[in-house]
Amino acid sequence: MTTIDRLRETVCRANLELAQSGLVFGTFGNLSAVDREAGVFAIKPSGVPYADLTPAHIVTVSLETGAVVEGSLRPSSDTPTHLELYRAFGCGAIVHTHSEFATMFAQANLPIRCMGTTHADYFRGDIPVTRSLTQAEVARDYERNTGLVIVETFRTRGLSPDEMPAVLVVNHASFAWAADCARAIEHAQVLELVARMDWRTRAMTTSGTLPARPDEFLIDKHFLRKHGPGATYGQR
Amino acid sequence: MTTIDRLRETVCRANLELAQSGLVFGTFGNLSAVDREAGVFAIKPSGVPYADLTPAHIVTVSLETGAVVEGSLRPSSDTPTHLELYRAFGCGAIVHTHSEFATMFAQANLPIRCMGTTHADYFRGDIPVTRSLTQAEVARDYERNTGLVIVETFRTRGLSPDEMPAVLVVNHASFAWAADCARAIEHAQVLELVARMDWRTRAMTTSGTLPARPDEFLIDKHFLRKHGPGATYGQR
Amino acid sequence: MTTIDRLRETVCRANLELAQSGLVFGTFGNLSAVDREAGVFAIKPSGVPYADLTPAHIVTVSLETGAVVEGSLRPSSDTPTHLELYRAFGCGAIVHTHSEFATMFAQANLPIRCMGTTHADYFRGDIPVTRSLTQAEVARDYERNTGLVIVETFRTRGLSPDEMPAVLVVNHASFAWAADCARAIEHAQVLELVARMDWRTRAMTTSGTLPARPDEFLIDKHFLRKHGPGATYGQR
Amino acid sequence: MTTIDRLRETVCRANLELAQSGLVFGTFGNLSAVDREAGVFAIKPSGVPYADLTPAHIVTVSLETGAVVEGSLRPSSDTPTHLELYRAFGCGAIVHTHSEFATMFAQANLPIRCMGTTHADYFRGDIPVTRSLTQAEVARDYERNTGLVIVETFRTRGLSPDEMPAVLVVNHASFAWAADCARAIEHAQVLELVARMDWRTRAMTTSGTLPARPDEFLIDKHFLRKHGPGATYGQR
Repeated sequence: MTTIDRLRETVCRANLELAQSGLVFGTFGNLSAVDREAGVFAIKPSGVPYADLTPAHIVTVSLETGAVVEGSLRPSSDTPTHLELYRAFGCGAIVHTHSEFATMFAQANLPIRCMGTTHADYFRGDIPVTRSLTQAEVARDYERNTGLVIVETFRTRGLSPDEMPAVLVVNHASFAWAADCARAIEHAQVLELVARMDWRTRAMTTSGTLPARPDEFLIDKHFLRKHGPGATYGQR
Repeated sequence: MTTIDRLRETVCRANLELAQSGLVFGTFGNLSAVDREAGVFAIKPSGVPYADLTPAHIVTVSLETGAVVEGSLRPSSDTPTHLELYRAFGCGAIVHTHSEFATMFAQANLPIRCMGTTHADYFRGDIPVTRSLTQAEVARDYERNTGLVIVETFRTRGLSPDEMPAVLVVNHASFAWAADCARAIEHAQVLELVARMDWRTRAMTTSGTLPARPDEFLIDKHFLRKHGPGATYGQR
Repeated sequence: MTTIDRLRETVCRANLELAQSGLVFGTFGNLSAVDREAGVFAIKPSGVPYADLTPAHIVTVSLETGAVVEGSLRPSSDTPTHLELYRAFGCGAIVHTHSEFATMFAQANLPIRCMGTTHADYFRGDIPVTRSLTQAEVARDYERNTGLVIVETFRTRGLSPDEMPAVLVVNHASFAWAADCARAIEHAQVLELVARMDWRTRAMTTSGTLPARPDEFLIDKHFLRKHGPGATYGQR
Repeated sequence: MTTIDRLRETVCRANLELAQSGLVFGTFGNLSAVDREAGVFAIKPSGVPYADLTPAHIVTVSLETGAVVEGSLRPSSDTPTHLELYRAFGCGAIVHTHSEFATMFAQANLPIRCMGTTHADYFRGDIPVTRSLTQAEVARDYERNTGLVIVETFRTRGLSPDEMPAVLVVNHASFAWAADCARAIEHAQVLELVARMDWRTRAMTTSGTLPARPDEFLIDKHFLRKHGPGATYGQR
């Protein structure tokens, strides 16, 4: 079995796991993973029901050219978005879903605010929303421009994709990423969890004034307890 | 097995699928499908628990006269509504449910706004609500008038039932349709999904000003990516 | 097997069904049924986990005296409430639950408004809330006074327990009833359903003005389509 | 089998039960129980998936020194919080979860108001929120200071941990406790239930004025019906 075969198998299995996660409706959503040494990433084909998915359906795409390398089906329509994220960020796997609460924030053009330690354990600050694409950006290379506007969001706001492993694309949905497939799915799940909690905070606010975010030192405490060289959480 | 037998079997199976979809409470809801060549549609009987349903229970109704053709049970009380929709629209199957979020919009007399690409992948714009029926329309031929007011809604607003395959009947519930049973159920499910997301957007709005809809070119991009001659989604 | 044995078996089975309905948390909630000829009703014992319940645990209580007739356990603490309802109303079975949405309306001292046909198919108008009990009424015969204040609510507002088979007890929870156990559970379920839908309507109202109720002739049309001598719904 | 072995087995089983309760996401959350005679409490290890947990993983900690007594893994990062609660309160078991509704109130810095009898059956009044920790308290001995600020909350407000067996830690999450593991989990579940109901009350309030709490004599009636020497609920 080649490295690429293994990658396709991993990506197939992870897409099936994603389908079981409750984050996905119908054929919405997709997951990819990259082999940077081989210069390719593997991704779900477009519009194929999760129930029918086998490793042979998984398509591999060149990181350099964006062209299909292996696979007889058409890759996910969101493939050019994944490509631009792999080019700009150092992640190993990317998950795209229309999970309901995160999508709803994307539709309302609102960041998911960092309101507590649950959020700070995974995301160091508010989860950002991209700007809208222009008519020209939608008309031509729409999916590629979606990737580029995500990268632009991180660059212009000085965000690190390692400390902020998710983004909302305005009026569309979310992308999340991580070093590997399991953690990318976990990030997509926590993204939905914190979106749900921030939504509930907003929904119960009757005064027009949202509760304040916690002190930054509390956010940093929790993020750094789990991430980076000073992490103390778990069995090390 | 005659064509009509097959139609009844299909409609029975699809009603059972609908009962499993989470969109239906108790005996609320019904699904029908049409055989335009034979000039009949087949529909669930009135008030029969889904658990007991067999193809023999399914009633067929003449498109021309509205009279029962085959079946010893009384057809769904909503049969005259289905009849008027088949007469006016070109669809192949119709689903009626009281799914909670869509019904709640019908009760609040509010359209389900098109707030993002999840909605635009299925419905090209806001999902409309009919006007209220008059006392005379309720008193006599209530169910038929429900169908007529749906058709009126589409005609007066210049909506295409192919681009807008669902409607809210004010203070009542929803109807959705498609070329076949599976897609009619899918439309009813997405209708509920987008109703839930628009509800959440409204529920979290504390300022009194709802977020704006996306640009029309984004809605068109997504609708036309999946529908019509220029569609690129899936394996073609 | 005596009539009373059968009643205890029926009530045991229906309490287990209630426990499976999603309306009940822990040991909250109880169901009773009456045999008016025998002059007794049968009810769940107090604080016994549903998992352990057998017909032998079910307690029978005299309609005339309120005293235990058969059963070695103490009856539900809400027994005097059931007693007063059986004395005043003609129902055959009563369900008490703390189902979340109905309870929340009771806590907010708000009726569940009749906003559409789903509600009107079961309840002819708004579902009422009782007044608060006085300190004296809470201090002595609290559970009996809970029954009396329900009866007072129906009498002073001219409501028929047949057309309005449920009530909210302010700051407490709900009671629902019907001719038999299965329909009493169904009423408790629809009560929760319409509470959830009215709550959602309120939660999404940003303007401070709730949507209007439907025309009364629409409510009557739906209630009378399913109830009374002119009913046309189902197989008759 | 020693007393301590049994304690570890009990705590392992209860942590698995907690994982099944719906209150826990991923590895968030932990449960401990104390053996006051032996002077130790047993707690879940840090960051170990619930699926892998065995009694051998459970760590025991000295009540006097806070040091690990038995177990080769690192105890939960929240161990110093549990320690301070065991020192100050007389409880036998403690549950920490990020259950969503309770956590959302902690994030919004709002108490869970006692709005009805469901709440009053378990908690005698509003469930309090701690003050924020200072930067110094977060920087050093963060988890121990979390325990101390809980104890401070109860002391300064004159609350009894027996009558109020739960607390919200601001911007973080909740702790609940009881005489034993099963009841501590039950308290965590009811905490989530009443948080959900109070949230819903807030979310549907459109006027800016929340509904009033019930009379104190009703709250006392229900709390004392189930707790203390005058309790009448259940089989006694």
